[in-house]
Amino acid sequence: MDRPERFPLRVGLGPGGEFDLIRRLVGADEAAWPGVEVGPGDDAAVLEGGWVLSTDLSIEDVHFRRSWLSDREVGYRAASAALSDLAAMAAEPVGILLSLAMPEHDVDIVEVQAGAREAVTATGGAVLGGDLSRSPGLLVVDVVALGRTARPLLRAGALAGDDLWVTGVLGASAAAVTLWSHEREPDAALREAFARPHARVSEARFLADGGGVHALIDLSDGLAGDAGHLGAAGGVRIVLEAGLVPVAEAAARALGPEEAASLALHGGEDYELLLAARPGSVDVEAFDARFGLPIRRVGRVEEGSGVWIEERGTVRRLQRGGFSHVGTDRR
Amino acid sequence: MDRPERFPLRVGLGPGGEFDLIRRLVGADEAAWPGVEVGPGDDAAVLEGGWVLSTDLSIEDVHFRRSWLSDREVGYRAASAALSDLAAMAAEPVGILLSLAMPEHDVDIVEVQAGAREAVTATGGAVLGGDLSRSPGLLVVDVVALGRTARPLLRAGALAGDDLWVTGVLGASAAAVTLWSHEREPDAALREAFARPHARVSEARFLADGGGVHALIDLSDGLAGDAGHLGAAGGVRIVLEAGLVPVAEAAARALGPEEAASLALHGGEDYELLLAARPGSVDVEAFDARFGLPIRRVGRVEEGSGVWIEERGTVRRLQRGGFSHVGTDRR
Repeated sequence: MDRPERFPLRVGLGPGGEFDLIRRLVGADEAAWPGVEVGPGDDAAVLEGGWVLSTDLSIEDVHFRRSWLSDREVGYRAASAALSDLAAMAAEPVGILLSLAMPEHDVDIVEVQAGAREAVTATGGAVLGGDLSRSPGLLVVDVVALGRTARPLLRAGALAGDDLWVTGVLGASAAAVTLWSHEREPDAALREAFARPHARVSEARFLADGGGVHALIDLSDGLAGDAGHLGAAGGVRIVLEAGLVPVAEAAARALGPEEAASLALHGGEDYELLLAARPGSVDVEAFDARFGLPIRRVGRVEEGSGVWIEERGTVRRLQRGGFSHVGTDRR
Repeated sequence: MDRPERFPLRVGLGPGGEFDLIRRLVGADEAAWPGVEVGPGDDAAVLEGGWVLSTDLSIEDVHFRRSWLSDREVGYRAASAALSDLAAMAAEPVGILLSLAMPEHDVDIVEVQAGAREAVTATGGAVLGGDLSRSPGLLVVDVVALGRTARPLLRAGALAGDDLWVTGVLGASAAAVTLWSHEREPDAALREAFARPHARVSEARFLADGGGVHALIDLSDGLAGDAGHLGAAGGVRIVLEAGLVPVAEAAARALGPEEAASLALHGGEDYELLLAARPGSVDVEAFDARFGLPIRRVGRVEEGSGVWIEERGTVRRLQRGGFSHVGTDRR
């Protein structure tokens, strides 16, 4: 499954051919812009006045198949993915701009909009506008997410000695895609993880308010890939402890523990939060009591670089820090 | 040629099946949002602090064909179309977020980005970020335009007695599309109008600074359609004076005066400005001296509703106030 990747610029990036292309793309744009406090390279831009802005494309047959999702779920999912970028900055959603390009074949665009509206109203925001267009064959949804925060949490800021935490469980969304790709039907839990992901907006603000969180990112590229972004942005080494990574039970049931564990690391589109925090600063019980969602320590931050995994007493570098959807054979 | 249409909500709209669909789409979203000063229905949203925000989708084979444009022009044109929404609010561009979905066939994405960058830097802005994705078949470009203004000029505000003005000449872009559609090659002037439209950002700010402009919109749907939006937003009737509409000479040369005049009215994608202003308030000579671009009075604002055209002494209602790209047979 392919995922869009923000053009990162000011912060470091994990390895990968796609990221090289992105670097080339934005290389000429390194500059300061009046009123822009955080530019390209983080999950969203931050503007003077605490406005937070992100954009997210969802394209049929790249990000979803219409045979997998109802029209309402297409809208819900696209909006959640964009809103997750606001969560990644610990910002409060104000609303979205929804752009839709409709294919000739039957799409109930009112349902798509209703799904997007449901996702954004669940986070306290509204549909603020957008574009409507024809598409010659594919449903295209672009969601611009707009939020506010007095204190954005960035990808950069992780310190050696920090603990690394993840909300929720991982791998369920990627497991659903894997099953569909093999003509198998995912169970309700896996399907829901893909079709109706929740942007962890309240969770992120709760964590930010608690203090001690040094760096935050949402999991769209997979734990390994996003840990790579966090590490590169902070100039630190990330060590994931394999036994601690919370693998979705439903994924393990459907695909076996090994494949599920791999999807938890590399699958992506979990839209959970990954954070680096001062040891002792995350109140696990208060978080669970408030949200009914686990938050787990999955590793640690050290001096150095790269993403490493500790498994059965040995630490090895993860060969693949990121997930490339552009493909290595393209250019 | 099809054009995207912003979801209009708070202001009135010209007639047309597409606009009915849009009304249905956004009907449930009528609300006030904290920090949002101008919501859906205008060319762009205006946020507290004077931030202006718009989004614009460009899709291969809907908004352009790759056989018509170089990759650089695809980027330039998409960015200009989005920046034109900032011009329509008399806002100063800060930058764009550029989202690209690349088809499998060969697109030089660096060129697309370079074109978009050229368009935005020409207006004083920068590329602030974006998304990169794969596309299964079509090049998709979404541009989020971000600007600022202390005093946005809205679609609403035209007063009976105002003069109606248009910058530049009209119909050239639509003439290029018409020629291409008939396997004819447009000349350099027509081609340029389609491939490298200029967002009239400086022109709009000059006009706003001059005072006397009551309502402003950019011409994306065609003079008749956008005049309909302006009239509906202001609760007034628009009378276009056919003899005054500035038809692009190159369009008349290529297609004859009658078709060129029709394209000037209905063709769209001129990205010029349409404004309603207090009589005597537009300094034509100063505008021309500053920009080397004509600004012409094309009609007047009266009490009533609808778009009317005065031709050879008679005034008739324009049957088609807007341009529908969704089609009447869809729903």
